[in-house]
Amino acid sequence: MPTNPDAFGAAILARADELAAISERPGMIARSFLTPQHRAAGEKILGWMRAAGMEAGFDALGNVVGRYAGADPSAPWILTGSHMDTVVDAGRYDGLFGILTAIACVEALHAKGERLRHGIEVIAFGDEEGVRFGVSMMGSKALAGRFDAATLQQRDANGVSLREALREFGCDPGAIASLARDPAKVAVYVESHIEQGPVLLDEALPVGVVTAIAGTTRVRVAVDGEAGHAGTVPMGRRRDALAAASEMVLALEAHCAASGGTLVGTVGKLAIPGEGAINVIPGRVEFAVDLRSGEDARRLEALAAIEARFRRIAEARRTRLAWEPFLHLDAAPCDPAEQARLAQCIARQGVAVRHLPSGAGHDAMQFHGVAPLAMLFVRCGNGGVSHNPAETMTAEDADLATRVLLDYLRAWK
Amino acid sequence: MPTNPDAFGAAILARADELAAISERPGMIARSFLTPQHRAAGEKILGWMRAAGMEAGFDALGNVVGRYAGADPSAPWILTGSHMDTVVDAGRYDGLFGILTAIACVEALHAKGERLRHGIEVIAFGDEEGVRFGVSMMGSKALAGRFDAATLQQRDANGVSLREALREFGCDPGAIASLARDPAKVAVYVESHIEQGPVLLDEALPVGVVTAIAGTTRVRVAVDGEAGHAGTVPMGRRRDALAAASEMVLALEAHCAASGGTLVGTVGKLAIPGEGAINVIPGRVEFAVDLRSGEDARRLEALAAIEARFRRIAEARRTRLAWEPFLHLDAAPCDPAEQARLAQCIARQGVAVRHLPSGAGHDAMQFHGVAPLAMLFVRCGNGGVSHNPAETMTAEDADLATRVLLDYLRAWK
Repeated sequence: MPTNPDAFGAAILARADELAAISERPGMIARSFLTPQHRAAGEKILGWMRAAGMEAGFDALGNVVGRYAGADPSAPWILTGSHMDTVVDAGRYDGLFGILTAIACVEALHAKGERLRHGIEVIAFGDEEGVRFGVSMMGSKALAGRFDAATLQQRDANGVSLREALREFGCDPGAIASLARDPAKVAVYVESHIEQGPVLLDEALPVGVVTAIAGTTRVRVAVDGEAGHAGTVPMGRRRDALAAASEMVLALEAHCAASGGTLVGTVGKLAIPGEGAINVIPGRVEFAVDLRSGEDARRLEALAAIEARFRRIAEARRTRLAWEPFLHLDAAPCDPAEQARLAQCIARQGVAVRHLPSGAGHDAMQFHGVAPLAMLFVRCGNGGVSHNPAETMTAEDADLATRVLLDYLRAWK
Repeated sequence: MPTNPDAFGAAILARADELAAISERPGMIARSFLTPQHRAAGEKILGWMRAAGMEAGFDALGNVVGRYAGADPSAPWILTGSHMDTVVDAGRYDGLFGILTAIACVEALHAKGERLRHGIEVIAFGDEEGVRFGVSMMGSKALAGRFDAATLQQRDANGVSLREALREFGCDPGAIASLARDPAKVAVYVESHIEQGPVLLDEALPVGVVTAIAGTTRVRVAVDGEAGHAGTVPMGRRRDALAAASEMVLALEAHCAASGGTLVGTVGKLAIPGEGAINVIPGRVEFAVDLRSGEDARRLEALAAIEARFRRIAEARRTRLAWEPFLHLDAAPCDPAEQARLAQCIARQGVAVRHLPSGAGHDAMQFHGVAPLAMLFVRCGNGGVSHNPAETMTAEDADLATRVLLDYLRAWK
């Protein structure tokens, strides 16, 4: 780290570059759970943690955990961190920044011989993206006491089970249950993360306070109309499943656009089964709705309104609607007092305070109900693109966000 | 055929059943070009033609042609017929009815020893659907002088060329050019065909006079927006390619619905490349437009209006539109005098006269510019479904349509 311990930004970005070079696939960043690359990245992080004065090691689930004890052994600990695994062809800051900024804060304290009343536990979760075993956020689930032991049977694309992969990695699957933190001993879980969206960028703000990690409902939708010859069925006689689905896509968009920023709704998959034919009126269309809100009541109210709207569209077009919600994830609200504390730290940097929800899921959400949550978002360049090599963060923003987090850690009483 | 030569319906349907039993695939009707099933169906048709007093044989392209000479050797001939090949899992009347009704008419004349001034040539085209070689209407193209010799190089799914398949079938590919009929010797081309749509069914009419075989333009459309995370990109910040495409699908529908029945427009294929993901805003959508009208000027005018509308939608949504028309087929109008003649024959049966365009293509269209065209549509049951085993025609409608055609043949001067 820099000789000037407050000049965090460039050093953090350099470490992110070092980690980005550890990849399973040439020419891109891809680092999944319990691989040699997981090991190598974890070892690097361990080294940085130790150099920052932490006791550090891998835990039973391959998380890297560093502990910087507080002055008061009876005080609960502040947990902070994020994930070190990546999607395939990832950016270099998603997850990693939350780890590196936390290490930089502890390093700054350690450089000054400064101990806070509360101990600080920095965690680099081994799995958040769920790329290898199809189950996401295993690392944070384990620490939050939410790890499902049945997950150990999950197999990767090569047929290797999670249990086997853990043993191979040197972990003890039987010890995972003991990773659960005692809520009484956790003061707060605070996570810094690149925004992965364009809100801060559009408003020219380096950081923002997360109000909640949005809740999500996903719905499988199918519209059944009547196939017919594109030339021989008059317009008024049609029961075109694609035209009905198109109206629904626009109705969802309109409903969410009118929500004053409290809802986002997306149709990311839509298909005519069998691909359709250029001269055949589509008889069936299948699509999926993803609806998110920071407020569960709003999401569920919107869900009912959207379903009703879809049913009216289906009926008016003499088509049949199948509406199957298949996933409900409640929102994880950030603690109001922690939001206020983060806001004060931002304001102390002379930066305008922006509160915004997180539309994407993060490790923090697993700690909902276990500890108060706090999340700091950092501006994402390039239009807000993430999960993509074009993901960017400036050294200035990384620096400012680290100063905010350090202030927050110190401010925590 | 029945002892009462005017009771055509049941006998025609029975013959259609006999032909339906000749199939390449068990449990369905599938009869493609230059197969043993083509041979077997053609032999049956030949037999019926000969029994009806015609000289008949296969020609150089595998068409079955029967000739019933007229009283005046100098008079041009009336050509009538349709195709004997089918799509895979076809109905039993598409194409076949036009052949069987024509044979029934000649049989009725022959039974009474009746000769018309004009000779009647009944043709069972070997290929209209284009299933085997991917080129449709080869039979009618050859007789209309529009067969492209390059087509002989086309290969089927097994790598057999059309030239090889023709030789195997006993045909002489070198003689195809000589099949072209001399326009001076063709009085009219008249085709009877099941409607393949619901218009006559909805209006409770057994037959109708075709005004034109619709012209078609097909357009490949692509919309490029910006992919993004379904949770992190606010609604107002999106450039959702699927929402843009949905608006275009509805704009096309609205434009055609407002045309007073002169246009039909369909999006039969639409896809998010790579299938999309439930939590990703679609960055690109590809679809195809099929636009038809009996009047070329209306079609081209609509095409320009729809393109302009799509461009406005794309622009308003900050997406990019690619618009590539890749097929233009002009309409083949039916001859007004022949339409009037058919209408008189229908009226003489005590049936209300309905004029309607044909949205689907038919062999008749190949004779546009070679001879005056006439087409008689027969009611299609089951909601107008065709190219499907559920295609139906009643014996009563088959009977009435045959009486109309016989009257027409007699009325032709």
